[in-house]
Amino acid sequence: MTDLALDLVRLRAAYAGGLAPADVVREVYARIAAAADPGIFTALTPEAEAVTAAEALGAFDPARPLYGVPFAVKDNIDVAGLPTTAACAEYAYVPAADATAVARLKAAGAIVIGKTNLDQFATGLVGVRTPYPVPVNACDPALVPGGSSSGSAVAVARGLVSFALGTDTAGSGRVPAALNNVVGLKPTVGAVPTRGVVPACRTLDCVSVFATTVDDAHAVFTVMAGYDPADPWSKDVPRGPVAHPPVLRVGLPTAESLRFFGDDIARAAFDESVADLAALGATFVPVDLEPFYAVADLLYEGAWVAERYAAIRGFFEANEDKVHPVTRAIVGGARSRSAADAFDGLYRLAAARRALDPVLAGIDLMVVPTYPSPVTLDEIAAEPIAANSRLGTYTNFVNLMDLSALAVPGRFRSDGRPGGVTLIGRAGADGLLAAVGRRLHAAVRPTLGATGLTLPDAPPPAAGVPDGLIPIAVVG
Amino acid sequence: MTDLALDLVRLRAAYAGGLAPADVVREVYARIAAAADPGIFTALTPEAEAVTAAEALGAFDPARPLYGVPFAVKDNIDVAGLPTTAACAEYAYVPAADATAVARLKAAGAIVIGKTNLDQFATGLVGVRTPYPVPVNACDPALVPGGSSSGSAVAVARGLVSFALGTDTAGSGRVPAALNNVVGLKPTVGAVPTRGVVPACRTLDCVSVFATTVDDAHAVFTVMAGYDPADPWSKDVPRGPVAHPPVLRVGLPTAESLRFFGDDIARAAFDESVADLAALGATFVPVDLEPFYAVADLLYEGAWVAERYAAIRGFFEANEDKVHPVTRAIVGGARSRSAADAFDGLYRLAAARRALDPVLAGIDLMVVPTYPSPVTLDEIAAEPIAANSRLGTYTNFVNLMDLSALAVPGRFRSDGRPGGVTLIGRAGADGLLAAVGRRLHAAVRPTLGATGLTLPDAPPPAAGVPDGLIPIAVVG
Repeated sequence: MTDLALDLVRLRAAYAGGLAPADVVREVYARIAAAADPGIFTALTPEAEAVTAAEALGAFDPARPLYGVPFAVKDNIDVAGLPTTAACAEYAYVPAADATAVARLKAAGAIVIGKTNLDQFATGLVGVRTPYPVPVNACDPALVPGGSSSGSAVAVARGLVSFALGTDTAGSGRVPAALNNVVGLKPTVGAVPTRGVVPACRTLDCVSVFATTVDDAHAVFTVMAGYDPADPWSKDVPRGPVAHPPVLRVGLPTAESLRFFGDDIARAAFDESVADLAALGATFVPVDLEPFYAVADLLYEGAWVAERYAAIRGFFEANEDKVHPVTRAIVGGARSRSAADAFDGLYRLAAARRALDPVLAGIDLMVVPTYPSPVTLDEIAAEPIAANSRLGTYTNFVNLMDLSALAVPGRFRSDGRPGGVTLIGRAGADGLLAAVGRRLHAAVRPTLGATGLTLPDAPPPAAGVPDGLIPIAVVG
Repeated sequence: MTDLALDLVRLRAAYAGGLAPADVVREVYARIAAAADPGIFTALTPEAEAVTAAEALGAFDPARPLYGVPFAVKDNIDVAGLPTTAACAEYAYVPAADATAVARLKAAGAIVIGKTNLDQFATGLVGVRTPYPVPVNACDPALVPGGSSSGSAVAVARGLVSFALGTDTAGSGRVPAALNNVVGLKPTVGAVPTRGVVPACRTLDCVSVFATTVDDAHAVFTVMAGYDPADPWSKDVPRGPVAHPPVLRVGLPTAESLRFFGDDIARAAFDESVADLAALGATFVPVDLEPFYAVADLLYEGAWVAERYAAIRGFFEANEDKVHPVTRAIVGGARSRSAADAFDGLYRLAAARRALDPVLAGIDLMVVPTYPSPVTLDEIAAEPIAANSRLGTYTNFVNLMDLSALAVPGRFRSDGRPGGVTLIGRAGADGLLAAVGRRLHAAVRPTLGATGLTLPDAPPPAAGVPDGLIPIAVVG
C-alpha cells in the first residue's frame, strides 16, 4: 500500500481490483504524517470523517469518475465545515456549504482530505507570503514552493493526494506546478464556477487543478466545469473531448521577446521542450511577446489591484495590521486608484486584446516557459516583490486575455531543478491543450512530481475512446 | 418639391422617377432656412459642397441603399472637415476622418447635411444642457426637445432630413425620439462601431438612428452595422432580416412597477399601445421592473459616471469652468469614486444581469413607455437634474443590461402631446424589434414627426422580400 500510486489510472485499477477507499484514505493520512511538512496543509478533515466518507461510497462504481479519489483544496475555496482562512487567521470563517467546484467533485466520488496553504489572499507566486510555515518545495528545498497555490502543488508532488485544487488569477495555478514538477491546469475563465471561492480579482479568478498527469487534471476539470446560473462569472464553455489536430500551429515566442533574466539553463530547457513539440509535428509561428507583457503590466501597475482591494475592503480597512506586510503594501496601494483609472485600464485591455486578435487567429496555441527562472528562498527574501514579479512573466497576461493554459512539466533542467512549459490556448481550448499536453508530457518520460513514479500507461479506452480525448485517426 | 416626403420609400421612388439628388439637397437647405430654429444644427455642410456630393452620385443606382439620402449627424460623431464640438466650443476639434458609421453611410450614397445640437458631452435626456440655443420641440414648443440627441430628433421630426444619427448611452436615442414623434433605434451595444464618436460611457455607447419610419431606421442600421476590427467595442451582431414570430411573448411591466409620476394620461396612452400590441397577437408575460430600476441606479449613482469623467478627463481638468454647470456637477462627482467602487459596480451589474436572465429567457421582447411623462422647459428649469432623471426611467437600464431597443411613436396623448413605447430585446434582437415595431407603428396610423405626412405604403418587395424583413408565412 505504501507504494500505491494515486494517479487516477492506477488508483482506479486498484479499486476495480477490490481495494477499499477507506484503506486509501488511511494511507493518505499516514503519508501526510510521514511527510512532516507543517506548511502544506492549513487544516485536515478529521481522519475518521474522511474514512466515513470513503466507506459511504460503497462498492466500486465505475460510473463515478472520481470514486474514492483523495484530494486537497486550496484554503481560499470553501469546504463545508472546515475553516476558510485565505492564509489569514483573522479573516477566517467556517462555510456552511461547499464551493460549487468542491461539491461537484464530491458528487463524483472524490474525498476531501484537507485545506492547503497559500500566499495570503492568493496574492503572490512564491508561497512565502503566509503567516503559516512555508511548504517545502518538493523538488528542491532551496527553491520557493511557488504560489499562490503552494500547499496544493507540494501535496500533489509528494504523492499525498491524487489531485488538488488551486486558484489562478495571474499564474497561481501554473507557477507552483512547474516548481514542483506537476501539471497545472488553468481553465478558461468562467468554465469552472467560482462560487465559494474567496475572490482575488473576481473578473479573472479561475479554480485550477494540480495533478501528476495531464489526463488526471483534465478529468478533474471536466467534472468541475459547467454553467452555474448563480455565479455571475460562470460561462458555458465547451469541455468535451478534442482531437489533436492533424496540423498544429504553435505560436513560438521570438528569441528577442523571451525573458530568462540571464538564466541560460532555462533557455536551453525551453529549447528542449520546443524540440519535443516539433517532434510531435507542431508547425511553429513566431510570436512577439512584448504586447502580451504590456497586457500583464496592467495587472499590478494598473487598476486590477483594486479588485484585490475590493474583494476584502471591509476586512482590510478594519484589520490592515493583520495582513501580511508584502500583501498589505500591494493591496493597500489600490486605495489611490480612481474609478476613472479602473475604466482606463478596462479600455486599454480591450484595445490590447483587439490588437492581438490577429496574432491569436493565426495559431492553435502558444508555448511559453512556465516561468523564466526558478526563485530561491534567499532570492525572495532579498527581493520580496521583484523576484515574485519575474515568476509571473509568462502567466500574468493569460487571464486578462481570456486565454486557457496548461503547465506541463519538462525534463529536469541541467542543474536538476524543475522546468516545464505552458501551453496557452483561446478561451474554450481546454480540451485542445489537454490533447497536446498529454503527448508532450509523455515525450518527456517524466517522473511524477517528487514521487519517483513514472507516467502510467494510458487507460484502456472505454467504448473505444480514452476519457476526455479522441485519438487521431488520420484517413488518407 | 416643397411637399416632397424624405422617407426612404418615397424619396427612392422619386429618384427612380428621375429626381436629381442635387435638387433634393437644395430643397433641404431651403427647409432648414425656413425652419428658422438656430438650435437644431451646430454646423452645416456648405450647401455647395453638399450639392457637389449629390452630383457626384451620378444617375440613380438602385444598388446603393441610401442613394441621395440627406442626413444629419449628432455633433459628438466625427464628420471629416466639420468641427466636432460635443456642444462645448472649447472642446472642439476638426476630425480628418469620418466616424466608421458615417463613412459607411456615405459609401451607401447618403449625404451629410450638418451636425446637430446635443446635451453637452451627451450627458442628459433633455436637450437644454447646451451652450447653444435649445432646439424647439417639433410637436409642442412648451416641451423640452429631449436629449441628448436633441437636434437630430427635431431635424427628422421637422422633415429637414431623411434620418439623423444620435448616440445612446442611457436613452439619448430614445427619449428625444418619443418627444418629437419619430422612431428611435438604439442598436445592440457593439453592433455599430463607435470609432470616431466622442465617448460618454465607452462600454455602453451606441450610435443610434432617428427616422420617421421603422423600416427607414432599420435600413440605416443595417448599413452602419458590422464588425470593425479597429474598434475594441465592436461586435459581430446579426443584422439580417428577421421574421415576426408566430407567437410573440411580450414582457409587460406589472402595474405596480410602472412609474408615471402621477401622469394618468401617460398611463392611458401606454394602455392603448399595449392594446395595439395585443391586437397584433402578442402574448403578454408580466414582468416586475423593480430589478431593472436597480440596474439603472448603477448608472448615475454608481461608478459609470466615472466613464464620463474618464472620457474627457484631460479636458475637464484643464477647462472645468467651460463645462455646462449641470454637466460639470454630474461629471465632476466622479472624481471621488475609487477604482474599487468601479469594480464593485461591475460586480453588482454582473449579478443583476445574471439574476434577470430567467426573466429575459421567458420573453421575446419587452414593452415599456419610452418615458413616464413629458417634461416642459419650465419643469427642467426648476429641477435640472431630477426632471431629467425621471425621463430616463425606462431607458437607463437598457445599455447596462446589453439589450437592444426601438422607440416607436404611439397615438398622440389625449392632451395632444407625443407619447410612444419602446420595445426592448436581447442583444442581437434588432431585427426582431424592427419586425414587430413596424407593425405596431402602422397600427397607430401615425403622422410622421411634425411633418403632417402619413406612413408610406410598404415598398414593393424586391425579390419577394421587403428590405430587412421577411413576411410571415404560416404554413399549416
